[in-house]
Amino acid sequence: MAPRYAPSLRSCLVPTLLLLQLAFIVIFYFKTEIQIHVRAHGDSFSDVYPMFQDVNVMLILGFGFLSTFLVRYGFSASAFTLLVAVVATQWAIILNGIETFIGKIRIDLRSLIDAEMCTASVLISIGAVLGKTNPVQLVLISLLEVSGFILNKWVLQTWLKVQLLNSIMMLHIFGTFFGLMLTWTMYRKGSEEGFEKEKFDQRSGLFSMLGTLFLWMFWPTFNSVLVDGRIPGRKLGVVCSTYLALAVSAVAAAAMSVLSSPKGKLNLIHMQQCILAGGVAVSVAISAVYQPWVAMTIGLTATVVSTVGHRYLKTQMLLAFQCHDTRTVLSTHGLPGLLGWLIRLILEVQALDDHTTAIRFAVFHICALLATIAISMSMGIITGLLLKWDFWRPPQENKCYDDQAFWEFPHLAKRK
Amino acid sequence: MAPRYAPSLRSCLVPTLLLLQLAFIVIFYFKTEIQIHVRAHGDSFSDVYPMFQDVNVMLILGFGFLSTFLVRYGFSASAFTLLVAVVATQWAIILNGIETFIGKIRIDLRSLIDAEMCTASVLISIGAVLGKTNPVQLVLISLLEVSGFILNKWVLQTWLKVQLLNSIMMLHIFGTFFGLMLTWTMYRKGSEEGFEKEKFDQRSGLFSMLGTLFLWMFWPTFNSVLVDGRIPGRKLGVVCSTYLALAVSAVAAAAMSVLSSPKGKLNLIHMQQCILAGGVAVSVAISAVYQPWVAMTIGLTATVVSTVGHRYLKTQMLLAFQCHDTRTVLSTHGLPGLLGWLIRLILEVQALDDHTTAIRFAVFHICALLATIAISMSMGIITGLLLKWDFWRPPQENKCYDDQAFWEFPHLAKRK
Amino acid sequence: MAPRYAPSLRSCLVPTLLLLQLAFIVIFYFKTEIQIHVRAHGDSFSDVYPMFQDVNVMLILGFGFLSTFLVRYGFSASAFTLLVAVVATQWAIILNGIETFIGKIRIDLRSLIDAEMCTASVLISIGAVLGKTNPVQLVLISLLEVSGFILNKWVLQTWLKVQLLNSIMMLHIFGTFFGLMLTWTMYRKGSEEGFEKEKFDQRSGLFSMLGTLFLWMFWPTFNSVLVDGRIPGRKLGVVCSTYLALAVSAVAAAAMSVLSSPKGKLNLIHMQQCILAGGVAVSVAISAVYQPWVAMTIGLTATVVSTVGHRYLKTQMLLAFQCHDTRTVLSTHGLPGLLGWLIRLILEVQALDDHTTAIRFAVFHICALLATIAISMSMGIITGLLLKWDFWRPPQENKCYDDQAFWEFPHLAKRK
Repeated sequence: MAPRYAPSLRSCLVPTLLLLQLAFIVIFYFKTEIQIHVRAHGDSFSDVYPMFQDVNVMLILGFGFLSTFLVRYGFSASAFTLLVAVVATQWAIILNGIETFIGKIRIDLRSLIDAEMCTASVLISIGAVLGKTNPVQLVLISLLEVSGFILNKWVLQTWLKVQLLNSIMMLHIFGTFFGLMLTWTMYRKGSEEGFEKEKFDQRSGLFSMLGTLFLWMFWPTFNSVLVDGRIPGRKLGVVCSTYLALAVSAVAAAAMSVLSSPKGKLNLIHMQQCILAGGVAVSVAISAVYQPWVAMTIGLTATVVSTVGHRYLKTQMLLAFQCHDTRTVLSTHGLPGLLGWLIRLILEVQALDDHTTAIRFAVFHICALLATIAISMSMGIITGLLLKWDFWRPPQENKCYDDQAFWEFPHLAKRK
Repeated sequence: MAPRYAPSLRSCLVPTLLLLQLAFIVIFYFKTEIQIHVRAHGDSFSDVYPMFQDVNVMLILGFGFLSTFLVRYGFSASAFTLLVAVVATQWAIILNGIETFIGKIRIDLRSLIDAEMCTASVLISIGAVLGKTNPVQLVLISLLEVSGFILNKWVLQTWLKVQLLNSIMMLHIFGTFFGLMLTWTMYRKGSEEGFEKEKFDQRSGLFSMLGTLFLWMFWPTFNSVLVDGRIPGRKLGVVCSTYLALAVSAVAAAAMSVLSSPKGKLNLIHMQQCILAGGVAVSVAISAVYQPWVAMTIGLTATVVSTVGHRYLKTQMLLAFQCHDTRTVLSTHGLPGLLGWLIRLILEVQALDDHTTAIRFAVFHICALLATIAISMSMGIITGLLLKWDFWRPPQENKCYDDQAFWEFPHLAKRK
Repeated sequence: MAPRYAPSLRSCLVPTLLLLQLAFIVIFYFKTEIQIHVRAHGDSFSDVYPMFQDVNVMLILGFGFLSTFLVRYGFSASAFTLLVAVVATQWAIILNGIETFIGKIRIDLRSLIDAEMCTASVLISIGAVLGKTNPVQLVLISLLEVSGFILNKWVLQTWLKVQLLNSIMMLHIFGTFFGLMLTWTMYRKGSEEGFEKEKFDQRSGLFSMLGTLFLWMFWPTFNSVLVDGRIPGRKLGVVCSTYLALAVSAVAAAAMSVLSSPKGKLNLIHMQQCILAGGVAVSVAISAVYQPWVAMTIGLTATVVSTVGHRYLKTQMLLAFQCHDTRTVLSTHGLPGLLGWLIRLILEVQALDDHTTAIRFAVFHICALLATIAISMSMGIITGLLLKWDFWRPPQENKCYDDQAFWEFPHLAKRK
C-alpha cells in the first residue's frame, strides 16, 4: 500500500548535502585563495560592494519571496531558494575558475558576482517546477544547470565570439528553456486538472509582492554590475535605461492586465511578473541600448508580450504541450528575453553601415541564440530524465505545493 | 438600478495609461539623452548610486508597504503606489528639465533623484485619499500634483530666492495640504460613521511595520542625498542629525502613545507614523541644523506634536472639517513639517547678527510657506473637483478599502 | 483580587522614556559635536555609508523581524527591538566617547557603527527573554548591558591588550551569557510546561524568515565594516570568507535539521537560526581567517554544533537549569561564538613559530574569554535581580508572548 505520509527526506537529502558540501570544501582547499591585489582594470572594493549586495538581495530575497505566492508553500519557496542559491553559487565559483587548471582560483567580488549570475539562471528554472520537486531534486538541478550554463557561456565566448556580458545575459533565455524542458519531462498525469493548493491569497500575495519589488528596484544594478566602469557614462546609461524600462513596464502591466481581463480587473500575478519584463528584455539587449526612449519602447513591448503570455499562453502550454509552468517563467523571462534578443539584432544591424559586417553579425547573433536554446533544452531534458527516477522520492500528488511535506509544524503537534 | 459589482476599470484606465505612456515615450524620444560626461561639481557614479537605491527603496517599498495597514487593501496599496511612483517620476523628469527648451534634457542619477523627490510629495498626498480612489484618479493626481510641486519649486527659487534643497524639502508641507484639500473636496457623506474595512490586524499591521522601518532606516539618505558633497562634513552632519532625530522620535512616540492612551497601551499606528516625525521635521529644517542636540530636540518636539495630532486631531478633522484623512498625513508629515519650518526660522534668525538681514530672511521664509500652502491648496482643490466627476468611476461606498473592487481573486472563483 | 487585564504601562514606561531621553539630549548638548574633518586614517563618507546602512538594516529589520516568529507577538517583537536599539545606540555613543572627559565626543559614521555593535549584543540578549518582559524592563536591560559591554571592551583592551575589532566581536558571547543569566534569574515557575502562544505559524514564520534573510545577506558587512580598509585585500577577504561560511551554513543547517528529525523533515527555526551560525563563528574568529576553506570549515562545524544545540539543548537548559531561552540564543550565538573563539585560538597558536609567544597568546586569549563570561554573567544576574522587582509590572503568565498586553487593537473595540 502506498504511504499516506510524505516520504522522509533523511536517507536522500542528508548524504547528498553533506557529501556535496565536503567535496566543495576540499576543492576550495586545493584550488582557491582570496584575491589580495586589486585587479588592474577593476573598480575598487567600495565601488562594487553595494552593487554586490544588491544582487545578493535580488537572488536570496527577491527570487525567494517572489515564489511565496503559493498559499501553503511559503517556507519551502524561501528556504529552498536559499539552498539552491548557495549550492549553485559555490559550484559556479569552481566551474568559472576551472580554466586555470594550474594555479589557484582567485576569489574576489567580481568572481562572486559572476557566480551569482549563473545562480540567477537556476533560480529562473526552478520557478517552472516550483512545488513539484523536493530539495534533493532542486540541488541536482542547480548542479546540472550551472554546468550547462557555464558550458553555454564557454561555447558562446569561444566559438561565437560573444562578449562576456552578452553571454551572461542569455541567462534569462537559458533558464527559461531549461526550466520548460524540465517541467515537460517531469510532467505528471492529472496536472491539467489543476492543484487545489496552487493559488494565492491576501497574505501570500503580499509576501510575493515584497520579493517582486526587491527584484524590480534592484534590476538596474543587475544589468549594470558587469558593465565596464571605465567607459565614461556607460554604467550610468545602463542604470537609467533599465530604470526607465522598468517604469514603463509597471504602467504597461497595469494597462494590459485590465485590458485582457473580462471583468476589467487587475491580476496580481501580472502586476508581479510582468512589471519585470522590461528589465529582462533590456538585460538581453543591453549592449545595444543607448537612448532612454529605446529602453522605454523595449519595456513597453516586452510587457505587452509578457502579459499576453500570462493571460493566454500558460493554459495552452499545459494543455497542448503538457508543460506545467508554476511561476510562468516562459512569459516572465522567456518571451521578454527573446524579444530583447530580437531588438538587439535589429539595433545592431541597423547601426552597422557595412552590409557584410551586418550579415556576419546577424549570423553570429542567431547562432548564439540557437546554441543557447539547444544546450539549455538538452540539459533540461537530461536533468528531467534523471530526476524522474523514483529514487529521489518526489512529493506525491496530494503533497505538491504544500509545506507539510517537508516541514515540521511543532505547534500542530502540541495541540494534539 | 445601481450596479452591484464594482465598475470595470477597462474603458477608463487602459486608454489613460497607454496613451500617457506613449506620450511620455515620444517626449523622451525628442527631448532626452543620457548624461555621458560627469558633471563638473558632482559626485561620482558609485558615490551616489547606493543613495539613489535607498531613495528608490523608500518610495517603492517604504511608502508602498506603509500603506498596507488596511486589512483588505494590501494589493492595491502596494501596487498603486508603484504605479503612481513610476508615472510621477517620468513626468517629473520631463517637467524638471523643461527649462531647457532648446537642447535636450540630460538624464543622470541626480535628475532621477530630483524627480523622485517630487514623487515623494505625491506619495504623501495619496495617503490622505487611500482606499477611496481608483487607479485612474491616482494617476491624474500624480500628474497634477507633480506639475503643482514643480511650479511651487520654481516660484520659491525664482521669486523668493529659496535654495533648491530647501524648496524641495517643502515636499512634506506641499504634499500634506494638497492631500487634505483633495480629500476635503472629494468628501462623501457618511464617511464620519467610519468604514468597516478601515482597520488593521496582526498581519497587515506587520506588513505596514516593514514599510515603516524601511522609511525610518533610510531617512538619513533622504535628507542627505541632495546636500552638496563638496562642503566637508556637511553630508555626514545631516546623516548623523537625521539618525539621532529619528532615534529620539522612536523613544518619544512610544512614550507619548502610552501617555495619551486611556488604557496605557501602545498604538501601532503611532509607532509607525510618529517615529517618522523627527525625520520629517529635520528634512524641512535641514539647512539650519548643525548640532546633534538640536536635531534631537526637533525630533522630540515633532513626535510630541505628531502623536497628539494622531490621537485627537484625526477625529476633529473629520467631524469639524469633513476631511477624512486615511493615513493621517496631517499629523505624520504636515505638523512636523510646519514645526521644522518654524524651528528653521528661529534658528536662522537667531544666528544672524544683523537685525535687517534677520527681518528680511523672516519675511522671505514666511512668504515661502504661504506660497507653498497657497499653491498646494489651490492645486488640491482643482484636482479634487476634477476627480469628483463620475466619469472616473470612483469605487462605491461598500467597495472602499477593498481589493475586491480592483483585483481578480482566481482562487475564490475556482472554489465555486 | 488580581487584575484581569494586563497592568498599564503608563506610570512606569512614560516617565522612564521621557526622562531618559531628556537626559540623553542634555548630555549630547554638553558633550557632542559632529566630526567635520575626515579622520586621517579613515575611509571616505561614501565608502562607509552603504555599510553603515547595511548594519542599520540588520539591527532594526533583521533582529526586529527575526523575533516575529511568535504567532501573536509580532508588533511587540518588531517595535520593542526598535525601541531597545535606539536607546542602546544613544547610550553607547555616550559611553564609547566617555574617555574624552575634556573636550567633546566627535560623532561620525564610525562612532555610530561602534555604538550599533554594542546594540547588537543587547539585541542578542533580549532574544532570551523575548515575550516575558515589558518595554520598561527592556529599556533597563539595554542600559545595563551596554554599560557592561563597554566595561568588558575596556577591560579587554586595556588589561588584556585585545585589539578593538576582536573585543567588539565578543559581542556574541557577551550577549548570550548576559541573556542566559537574565532569563535564569527571572525564571518563573511553570515555564517548563510551555506556553500556549510560544509557537509559530505559516504567517509569522515567513515574517521571521524575512528578518533572518536580511541578517544572513548583510552578515559580510557586519564582519567587515570595522576591518581596517588600509590593509590591501583584508576587507575583501573578510567579506568573501563570511559569505562562503554563510553559504556552507545554509547547506549544513538543512542537512542537520533533517538528520536530527525523527520524521526526516526540516525545522523552520533551524533553517532560520542555524544558517547564521557560520557568520557568528567567523565574526569571533575573524582576525585569524585568511583562507576560504577555513571559513567554510568553520561554517560547517558551527552549524552542526548549532543545530544539535537547537534540537537537544533547549529542553535540557529549561528542565535542568531552569533557563527558558525563547529565541535559543545559546545555540544561535553562544555555541558558534565559543567555537569561533576556540578556532581562533588554534589557528593563531599554530601560526606562531615561537613557543613562548604562542603560550603567551593562549593565556591572554583564554583570559579574554573568561573575563567576558564573568562580566556578562555578573551583569546579567544583577540586571535580572533588578528586573524581578514587581515595581516594573512584568506581564502576567497568561499575557506572555501576547501583543494584547501592550497594544491597542482598535478594530476589535469597534466590533463590540
